Amino acid sequence: MPEGSGRSYRRASERRAEVIEAAIELFAARGVSTSLRNIGDAIGVSHAALRYHFPSRDELLVDVYRAHEHSFADPLEANSAVAGMRASAERNRGIPGLVELYATLTTDALQGEEHPVTREFITERFRDLRARLREAVVAQQEAGSVPADLDPGDVAALIIAASDGLQLQWLLEPGAVDVERSLAVLERLLPGIRE
Amino acid sequence: MPEGSGRSYRRASERRAEVIEAAIELFAARGVSTSLRNIGDAIGVSHAALRYHFPSRDELLVDVYRAHEHSFADPLEANSAVAGMRASAERNRGIPGLVELYATLTTDALQGEEHPVTREFITERFRDLRARLREAVVAQQEAGSVPADLDPGDVAALIIAASDGLQLQWLLEPGAVDVERSLAVLERLLPGIRE
Repeated sequence: MPEGSGRSYRRASERRAEVIEAAIELFAARGVSTSLRNIGDAIGVSHAALRYHFPSRDELLVDVYRAHEHSFADPLEANSAVAGMRASAERNRGIPGLVELYATLTTDALQGEEHPVTREFITERFRDLRARLREAVVAQQEAGSVPADLDPGDVAALIIAASDGLQLQWLLEPGAVDVERSLAVLERLLPGIRE
Repeated sequence: MPEGSGRSYRRASERRAEVIEAAIELFAARGVSTSLRNIGDAIGVSHAALRYHFPSRDELLVDVYRAHEHSFADPLEANSAVAGMRASAERNRGIPGLVELYATLTTDALQGEEHPVTREFITERFRDLRARLREAVVAQQEAGSVPADLDPGDVAALIIAASDGLQLQWLLEPGAVDVERSLAVLERLLPGIRE
């Protein structure tokens, strides 16, 4: 996507979307440990143009992850809360660069004073995901496949944690951990509504 | 721990241990996002002395975490694999700075080319922990409290992941996630040997 004449009519939102798409490919291929300037070089966008669309590296990283996540169907339209997370993990297996991006965002979020945008995004993402998985667990409890006396919020947090932690172990040593098989164990312990 | 005359007889290992102890307190109080130089300033050790004991920030961080982890009894001398991890998480609740240190180490480990020492430490730690938890799960299977047809390695990776991921969510929003309660759910699904 070269900068150039005759393209100035393009709306900022389209350019922004192009940058995000190119960055997704870059991160998928090479990982995320690179500066905003290097990202611009790699995808053929001037640093000034990149800064126009994304005031900071954090904002680019967050938008790349958001675009990646939204490009898939809602994993929660599954048979169980675990099944939804397992489907996500299955897709992520092909794109370790984006799993690494997610891990980077979560650690940046912990240093909230230095990364306020990332912290807000990740905190809100966990809140939203816990609320949605909680609903899926309640449905499983109503269907009788998950014990009714478990707190559905505790179960939701547990399922997200398992998926995150397994993907981290897998990134470090892909041959030693099978994310989907370990999540299948959890799914068997917290069965779906239908067989 | 001021630098000073008359202390040169101390063995390097003792000084090193002192630095680690001071760094544990520093991280526990203020988190980890700081340079080796700032760490030296904060604990009253010259940058040169710190560099003598720890060639890089990574080596200090790894040794601080290792010392912290070893200062507790083996969590696996518990009634079940989950119970051991739950006991660890319970202790960690009082020291969020060290949970943050752990999260930082795991993300650094993913950028292995830049953080080879961290990558080796974290990869080995996961290997060791999976092997030990696997043994605990096998014992539970032999006692009949965990289904015999589950792969104990898959279960071990799942338990570590749940503990890691829950502590991450808790660090971001302490009021929204109860690590011990969510791990208690997992413990109920994978019961210990004794009631």
